[in-house]
Amino acid sequence: MATGSSRSDSNPTIISGAWLASPGLGPTASEAAAGHSIIAEGAVVVVDSTIIDVGDRHEMARRYPDAVTHHRPSSLLIPGMINAHAHLPMTMFRGLVDDIDLSAFLATVIPLEDAVLTAETVSLATELALVESFLAGVTSTLDMYFFHDAIFDVARRLGFRLFAGPILIDPFPGPLVDGVVAADRVDRATDWLSGRGDAGLGGGVVHAHSGYLTSPQMLEAAAELSDQFGVPLHVHAAESADEVAQIRERFDASPIEHLARHGCVSGRSVLAHCVHATASEIELIAEAGATVSHCPASNLGLASGVAPIPEMVRRGVNVAIGTDGPASSNNLDVRAAGRLAALLSKGTSGDATVLAADDLLARCTVGGALAVGRGTDLGRLLPGYRADVVVVDLSGPHHLPVHEPVGSLFSCGQGSDVTDVWVDGIQRVRDRQVVGVDMPALADRVSELGMHVRTKVAI
Amino acid sequence: MATGSSRSDSNPTIISGAWLASPGLGPTASEAAAGHSIIAEGAVVVVDSTIIDVGDRHEMARRYPDAVTHHRPSSLLIPGMINAHAHLPMTMFRGLVDDIDLSAFLATVIPLEDAVLTAETVSLATELALVESFLAGVTSTLDMYFFHDAIFDVARRLGFRLFAGPILIDPFPGPLVDGVVAADRVDRATDWLSGRGDAGLGGGVVHAHSGYLTSPQMLEAAAELSDQFGVPLHVHAAESADEVAQIRERFDASPIEHLARHGCVSGRSVLAHCVHATASEIELIAEAGATVSHCPASNLGLASGVAPIPEMVRRGVNVAIGTDGPASSNNLDVRAAGRLAALLSKGTSGDATVLAADDLLARCTVGGALAVGRGTDLGRLLPGYRADVVVVDLSGPHHLPVHEPVGSLFSCGQGSDVTDVWVDGIQRVRDRQVVGVDMPALADRVSELGMHVRTKVAI
Repeated sequence: MATGSSRSDSNPTIISGAWLASPGLGPTASEAAAGHSIIAEGAVVVVDSTIIDVGDRHEMARRYPDAVTHHRPSSLLIPGMINAHAHLPMTMFRGLVDDIDLSAFLATVIPLEDAVLTAETVSLATELALVESFLAGVTSTLDMYFFHDAIFDVARRLGFRLFAGPILIDPFPGPLVDGVVAADRVDRATDWLSGRGDAGLGGGVVHAHSGYLTSPQMLEAAAELSDQFGVPLHVHAAESADEVAQIRERFDASPIEHLARHGCVSGRSVLAHCVHATASEIELIAEAGATVSHCPASNLGLASGVAPIPEMVRRGVNVAIGTDGPASSNNLDVRAAGRLAALLSKGTSGDATVLAADDLLARCTVGGALAVGRGTDLGRLLPGYRADVVVVDLSGPHHLPVHEPVGSLFSCGQGSDVTDVWVDGIQRVRDRQVVGVDMPALADRVSELGMHVRTKVAI
Repeated sequence: MATGSSRSDSNPTIISGAWLASPGLGPTASEAAAGHSIIAEGAVVVVDSTIIDVGDRHEMARRYPDAVTHHRPSSLLIPGMINAHAHLPMTMFRGLVDDIDLSAFLATVIPLEDAVLTAETVSLATELALVESFLAGVTSTLDMYFFHDAIFDVARRLGFRLFAGPILIDPFPGPLVDGVVAADRVDRATDWLSGRGDAGLGGGVVHAHSGYLTSPQMLEAAAELSDQFGVPLHVHAAESADEVAQIRERFDASPIEHLARHGCVSGRSVLAHCVHATASEIELIAEAGATVSHCPASNLGLASGVAPIPEMVRRGVNVAIGTDGPASSNNLDVRAAGRLAALLSKGTSGDATVLAADDLLARCTVGGALAVGRGTDLGRLLPGYRADVVVVDLSGPHHLPVHEPVGSLFSCGQGSDVTDVWVDGIQRVRDRQVVGVDMPALADRVSELGMHVRTKVAI
């Protein structure tokens, strides 16, 4: 627990604002959006890590007279947002490789990773990433990266909900940057998942990198581990035209078909990108009940293309929102990614009603919660849900006048509008500062790491 | 001059940061981007309203020992950004009409305008818009709206560079919301342009609304006024498929062809949107040396489509960046619009190199300066240019580590990173506050206006 943070313990805490918005119940993000509620002068009541009541703030004050109250008179309360696809430690590379496509990006980044990644550099870059995430109102992230134990250590220390685990990847037999050889990866993943009591507020996940860097045998092992341990199976899928061509040539299939053949498209699957998903693949995803993590900033920035999100939404796919790694996207602001997703889907489909504000909020919260298998206790401001609460100030001139608070959040907002964040009932952001983090010291250490990274670029 | 603002007068002022970035010289934004410079520990030296020197800050301090110095040790200095297409007073409607297409949008907004617009409501909404613009690092705007005299009054009072003027529009003979009948518009525009000494730091413009709301005769009158007074001719063009169909049916032409036939595509023309520009129309625009104001947030949000910007850039068109009115976009953040433009052009063209960071900065500055006919004194941090200087803090965790400052500005940044703004040598933003504006009082008045607007929605 970070210094200075405080849990409500058994005394109730009331957090209130000018408005409270939450997706409703229902098994999918669409149904949750349909049951969306907005409460003027709304409040959540928190005991320990859980929301016990939600309603009008005056009524809540009467009902819980001993509560400690945090009232933000011009703010909107929303559930903590959930980043459904990231590579958090890639903060260390952000901006270094802009304005190039995915192949050129990987050709630069992979040697850099070999030169720079250690448990120490990954920890530092993760701390930065989690600070940035908290400040953007993101309380949970599904993250795929090497050195996941080091990343979990940082997440536990800062009180962030991390969903992560070992990566099954075997482009060649020898060791990758984490020192693990291909032949050992499945056993190590099994061991890690068996003992995953240390996932803190988040949970364990099995990652299969992709159809192009993970062999069919290893994809099948990943699917088995996901079943055996009941954990999400997170995989890159149909991100670029290059990948589509490569999978076609090697396996005579399209990427999502190929993953499905090897058991990787299930109700526990989280398929990142799906830019080049075909109509029949979308059907496959919908039937399986898998999640698509849509990462529009990365897909556009790397010129990968535009994912057919409106079609997925129509077919009932659980579309969640991800930022991807900050080397390609280049930030961890889920709200901004959601806004971009909505604009892009409207503009390219010709349908201005798709991903309307309430639906978008549901996808940034419930969509991500479903992705990580936590649809029943994360992603909503409802009694019984974990107290992940984000306070967004709507008093800035860029929001005024506030006609529709949830619309304003997405279409006018900035990351810096987030003033306060609670995770699991503990306040982690207060007045736009992460509680217990010495930001100037962190910035100095990160800047040194940045200089170190730049010395390795030519290698 | 707003209370508390200060001009450097004849004593030099040095404004410096960790980096200074400016487009170079050259007649187009592309050439300016090619000559782009970035100076570590860079400084501008300002006397009165003009930049007199640029260079290393230590050298500048030696050269001008009596200067007053403003140093921002972790910031990037850029030229004031220029919004190349807006309807500023539409702040009053922002968020009210989201998630609908252009036709539905206009069907809601036009009756609302009739019910709400007066010189007073427009002034208040403009003050809000200019505060928002300043805080986003925008120092100039090309604005098309009714009650332009009231808008100029506010811009002069706040020290903003407004480029605006009368609108030539004649959908029917009777009076529009400004009380002017169609038959009087050309005479009134002529009178206004003849006496336009009161344009403050900006300048006069003639607006022709569009090929669909302005008759061919009036388009020709607009073109003549633009020639006669040497002012920009600002017109909506090829925004939506509906417009394309309508112009085809009425005039047997595509929209930009139609405008060209009536003299409205010239070196002084600023064509907003051009979403549906054909290859031959792009050629027309390029040959004329006209500007295209690209407004990606509005075009996507209204499901109008995606403008063929990469093709325009290849043909050498002066593509500038606009936000459009905040009722459709929904903010006045040119940096954010530029970022979206780059992402969209990369993702839809498959070319990740298009609108790279330096080019984007040139389009947000020089591109807009060329649009308003001020390419020789606005849009660059170079000696002889007007001192419109924006300081962007890159020390936030979302920027770290800073590998490429201009890339970071666009791909990681938020409007709130802007800390200080000078316009014409006068500091207008200090520590993220607009100098001399009572923000709480303005917010209260705007919120009241918002309530008034909402009472009129059903009408």
